[in-house]
Amino acid sequence: MKNFMDRDFLLDTDTAKKLFFDYAEKMPICDYHCHLSPKEIYENKPYENISEIWLSGDHYKWRAMRSCGIDERYCTGDATPREKFEKFAYALQYCIGNPLYHWAHIELQRYFGIDTPLSAKTADDIFDRANKAMAEGDFRPQSLIANSNVKIVCTTDDPIDSLEYHKLLSQQDLPFRVLPSFRPDKALNINLDGFEDYIRALGDAAGIEIKHYGDVVKALCARADYFNEVGCKVSDQAFEYVPYREADEDELNKIFRKAMKGERPKQKDADKYRTAVMLELGKKYQELGWAMEIHIGALRNNNTAMFNKLGADVGFDSVGDCEIAKPLSAFLNALNVNGNLPKTILFNLNDKDNTVLATMLGNFQSSETQSKIQFGPAWWFLDTMDGMTAQMKSLGNLGVLGKFVGMETDSRSFTSYGRHEYFRRILCALIGSWVEEGKYANDEEILGEIIEGICYNNAINYFEF
Amino acid sequence: MKNFMDRDFLLDTDTAKKLFFDYAEKMPICDYHCHLSPKEIYENKPYENISEIWLSGDHYKWRAMRSCGIDERYCTGDATPREKFEKFAYALQYCIGNPLYHWAHIELQRYFGIDTPLSAKTADDIFDRANKAMAEGDFRPQSLIANSNVKIVCTTDDPIDSLEYHKLLSQQDLPFRVLPSFRPDKALNINLDGFEDYIRALGDAAGIEIKHYGDVVKALCARADYFNEVGCKVSDQAFEYVPYREADEDELNKIFRKAMKGERPKQKDADKYRTAVMLELGKKYQELGWAMEIHIGALRNNNTAMFNKLGADVGFDSVGDCEIAKPLSAFLNALNVNGNLPKTILFNLNDKDNTVLATMLGNFQSSETQSKIQFGPAWWFLDTMDGMTAQMKSLGNLGVLGKFVGMETDSRSFTSYGRHEYFRRILCALIGSWVEEGKYANDEEILGEIIEGICYNNAINYFEF
Amino acid sequence: MKNFMDRDFLLDTDTAKKLFFDYAEKMPICDYHCHLSPKEIYENKPYENISEIWLSGDHYKWRAMRSCGIDERYCTGDATPREKFEKFAYALQYCIGNPLYHWAHIELQRYFGIDTPLSAKTADDIFDRANKAMAEGDFRPQSLIANSNVKIVCTTDDPIDSLEYHKLLSQQDLPFRVLPSFRPDKALNINLDGFEDYIRALGDAAGIEIKHYGDVVKALCARADYFNEVGCKVSDQAFEYVPYREADEDELNKIFRKAMKGERPKQKDADKYRTAVMLELGKKYQELGWAMEIHIGALRNNNTAMFNKLGADVGFDSVGDCEIAKPLSAFLNALNVNGNLPKTILFNLNDKDNTVLATMLGNFQSSETQSKIQFGPAWWFLDTMDGMTAQMKSLGNLGVLGKFVGMETDSRSFTSYGRHEYFRRILCALIGSWVEEGKYANDEEILGEIIEGICYNNAINYFEF
Repeated sequence: MKNFMDRDFLLDTDTAKKLFFDYAEKMPICDYHCHLSPKEIYENKPYENISEIWLSGDHYKWRAMRSCGIDERYCTGDATPREKFEKFAYALQYCIGNPLYHWAHIELQRYFGIDTPLSAKTADDIFDRANKAMAEGDFRPQSLIANSNVKIVCTTDDPIDSLEYHKLLSQQDLPFRVLPSFRPDKALNINLDGFEDYIRALGDAAGIEIKHYGDVVKALCARADYFNEVGCKVSDQAFEYVPYREADEDELNKIFRKAMKGERPKQKDADKYRTAVMLELGKKYQELGWAMEIHIGALRNNNTAMFNKLGADVGFDSVGDCEIAKPLSAFLNALNVNGNLPKTILFNLNDKDNTVLATMLGNFQSSETQSKIQFGPAWWFLDTMDGMTAQMKSLGNLGVLGKFVGMETDSRSFTSYGRHEYFRRILCALIGSWVEEGKYANDEEILGEIIEGICYNNAINYFEF
Repeated sequence: MKNFMDRDFLLDTDTAKKLFFDYAEKMPICDYHCHLSPKEIYENKPYENISEIWLSGDHYKWRAMRSCGIDERYCTGDATPREKFEKFAYALQYCIGNPLYHWAHIELQRYFGIDTPLSAKTADDIFDRANKAMAEGDFRPQSLIANSNVKIVCTTDDPIDSLEYHKLLSQQDLPFRVLPSFRPDKALNINLDGFEDYIRALGDAAGIEIKHYGDVVKALCARADYFNEVGCKVSDQAFEYVPYREADEDELNKIFRKAMKGERPKQKDADKYRTAVMLELGKKYQELGWAMEIHIGALRNNNTAMFNKLGADVGFDSVGDCEIAKPLSAFLNALNVNGNLPKTILFNLNDKDNTVLATMLGNFQSSETQSKIQFGPAWWFLDTMDGMTAQMKSLGNLGVLGKFVGMETDSRSFTSYGRHEYFRRILCALIGSWVEEGKYANDEEILGEIIEGICYNNAINYFEF
Repeated sequence: MKNFMDRDFLLDTDTAKKLFFDYAEKMPICDYHCHLSPKEIYENKPYENISEIWLSGDHYKWRAMRSCGIDERYCTGDATPREKFEKFAYALQYCIGNPLYHWAHIELQRYFGIDTPLSAKTADDIFDRANKAMAEGDFRPQSLIANSNVKIVCTTDDPIDSLEYHKLLSQQDLPFRVLPSFRPDKALNINLDGFEDYIRALGDAAGIEIKHYGDVVKALCARADYFNEVGCKVSDQAFEYVPYREADEDELNKIFRKAMKGERPKQKDADKYRTAVMLELGKKYQELGWAMEIHIGALRNNNTAMFNKLGADVGFDSVGDCEIAKPLSAFLNALNVNGNLPKTILFNLNDKDNTVLATMLGNFQSSETQSKIQFGPAWWFLDTMDGMTAQMKSLGNLGVLGKFVGMETDSRSFTSYGRHEYFRRILCALIGSWVEEGKYANDEEILGEIIEGICYNNAINYFEF
């Protein structure tokens, strides 16, 4: 029996160990997509206790707690930090097979120096020890990032954001760079209440009066130029499904004008608007040399009662199952046929789509960039050992795994860089097993280069950081 | 090489063995969903030969036989018991990788004391030995259930059923309880011939004249109250896909009245009716404290020629592939937003839906019950080693496996309690492998509690038996 | 650590080795579906260098190269054979986890006698050694086929094909038979430009003036009779999705006449036409005793820019994700209910459909043929170690693996018979692991028969070659 989560955690062959310790572990981190707050990084305030770090904003943990019948008071409510930690520890012991269990222990070990397994019976003691470690150490955001050997952090920002904290951060002497990402979702959500207000704010931010559909595009492009000046290299959009419907300028203007009068369009019309804006944005990204990330398949805000109480992003989202192959192909082709297809990273939230995405890539590769179209790493609900392994096997079977840009955290927490370590251990275990089983040549020079590429170098080259 | 299906079958680590023999094996069985006949349990007639037990009603076996080109005469026809057994044994030897192969051998070992592998060449001898064991032992339904350490059997019953055999059984001094489940499918199948007759029979059973849509709900609720008095704790419904379409009372009455005149509604209208009835039933179940089981995705009676000859449930069903995420979310949310969502168990028949279901749960958990929304165990076509492992990994990755209510047989056979043993071996193998690989803390106290929970205690607590 | 791709490649248990070396390896090959050119087999011209064999027509390899950012000049362009080989070798070293990597090394070992792993640094040397081996050996198509112990080759042919090369080949004294397959896709593609021309050519080939819908059926049936005389036993059709829409003769004639005037029908109408033709063809196949292969789910020609440059079948196809269960069931049932369902092999390109297909089979089995409805082997993008294993596990769990007709190459290359060896190693590894884990009786007589069946005998019996 292996020891619980020791130095060799997940590294079950000699080759896996060699690849991890001699290559993977030594590489810096390029976190090309996350939800860290540039303001919090800039302000760099210390945390007071482990519950504040772990439980004040992590909907993964709240979901696990709610699944164990734990009252909302201990999740998002007013229970004390110790109470919350105790309840979480109780839930965690039932989370057998869940990445939360591994993430928590990696974080306890790496950040807090605690090797004891967390459960209901150890909760109190670990709460005290963790807080002691925090009192004695430096648990401010910048230190947590720097100590994790992170070189690049790409946050997720609205086009109307002033990026003031990115600018302030760029003037500091930090061992890592914090860059904005362009996330225009709100300008695409013509079907949601609040669209008109957002569009007006967008116009204000861009200094453009938005009257017609085309003005939205102009304003977004102006903001993209601004983001580009501040160092942005990546855009990001979330699609519940992939919209693709063609329409002409007149129709788009009609749809847009109605929406600006507060009339929510039907899905067909919303899709026409989204398609048109996305085609223009894709073209702009291509001009700027940006990568376009597309996150497909989250079904959001499923629980209206809790949405009314707590709002969005608090743990009531799940995985959709729409057909995506045809509209995604049509969308990428429409950009490509005119030479407007930017570097693109496709993320799926439903693993049933792995085969569709991993083969879709191959339709649009080109000599502009190595693996110009990428299969994004297993994300959110798929960010598990099984999910990551399945994504890499799928890319291996159907594409070129050696050119993969690798992991990002997609996280809101400063202690979640352990997920990169987790990913790298899984990567090395997978490739190590192939080598040990005689399925890939045991050539350390090539293997080391592949591992270093997937861990860091491929992303740096791909995004041109 | 391990011996063929010996005492350690599937238990490939020391931890798996410890968890199975010290915990799992000792727990009773709570079979919270099956298709056993309460009449047959009550009448308790002995079986005459192994073909009668194995081959008189088991469509799994008939399918395997037909796939080997075996004539229908040996499946549902008039061949002798020995002939049928010989043909089945021939088919079974080609069923490599099929759970039928394991189920058959577990049953031969546990019920008949026969360790010889079954194949064409051993068929005759095993037929004789099995029948000898039957002649010498007690193979009546009640003994088969009691000897399997079953404490709870939930049968599947139509709302119009008198439950007379449940009542008779409750007066007997048995070491297990036989409880009814409420399965209102026929009241929902407004699109099928025979609906009018069924609705009239439902009205008769409930003592309500059914004129309007609302009377159907009243009648069903009256029958639910009756079932509740007889000890029912569980409802069960089968959906080919998940219908969700809102409609008002007027529209529902129109749809219903047309259907009662023999006019089959279009799918949209049928879905409006089903949605409305299900929302009312969900509310009723919540009031009664019942759990609502939803079995999604069976495509039934695909072979019209055989349906015309043999009717339903004889082996001509398969797995559908509809999109389920959005309508299922909308349905659960519509109940939840009004406080009417009962305890719910979601079953999928297509493993592509594992991720959708395992994440859907988390949207509607609450402090009423631990894991109020459950991911049902791998069912029917997925009731295989791979299917069960995938379901548990999915729940582990995406939910809280430690609060899982575990296995039911979904079976029509009195010797199928071996499936619980099969499930428990697979469970212990899975969790054992995680512990041995250092992925979960080796804490026997916690592990034992989790295993006992998944095997029995969680279900008893969840259903409040 | 196992040696890289040595004699025991993939055979990780003693049982796997026994099954492979004593049974699988000795069986001939029945390649019941491929895209080899009967003309090239007949003309039997030697190849000049390894790039000509490997890189002149293999879109799998081009896709891998494009994914590494390699310019089209080295794929389909005018680079020298050595340059192309070097670029391919560079790409291959990043194809870790890809079947291309294994196929290339199996071919290097078996056909060229080269054991060195191929990568950028060994490319030049291997290019020279391979070409030397070709100069010294016999690398003509007929020798490549014969030396791979192939007994049956079923090519893929258009109904209007004269089959002249098949006739010429049948007069030669060869150790293998080359038979045509009937692929009527162009007669079904009423939605594509060129349909009218094709229908006229079909009429010419059949000697029938095609005026009405029914004449298309007559002409296809006449050509099927002709194919049958030349030895055809198999038909093959590709469906992006499964069309199933009923229509009457009048409607079909209207749709057909419009199409013949150059008016492309809407999808609904195209589907009515396709359904009707397929139902008639199915009946014809049943009369002729042919097997009907249905390949479901390829999304073709996704990249319009490259299609305009290079045409079809050059590496810009990917995997679709339509719902298939209901229309496929309806189609098979419509044939079956009238006694017109031929032997049928269902192939899926999206592994999410494994469960649907593997259970669909069981709805339509009969005593006419053992496993009359077959689950086709993992194909094209799924023709990987993981894909083949998943298909066999799926068939094992849900059907009768022991009656599987096994592998075909689906290939365009004369050195791709190594894929049969690859399949057989994977088969023996899978079954070997089950036996060694005590999951199937260790009865060599039965196991050997099953292996020989899946490798060769089942196909010979099924197709009645």
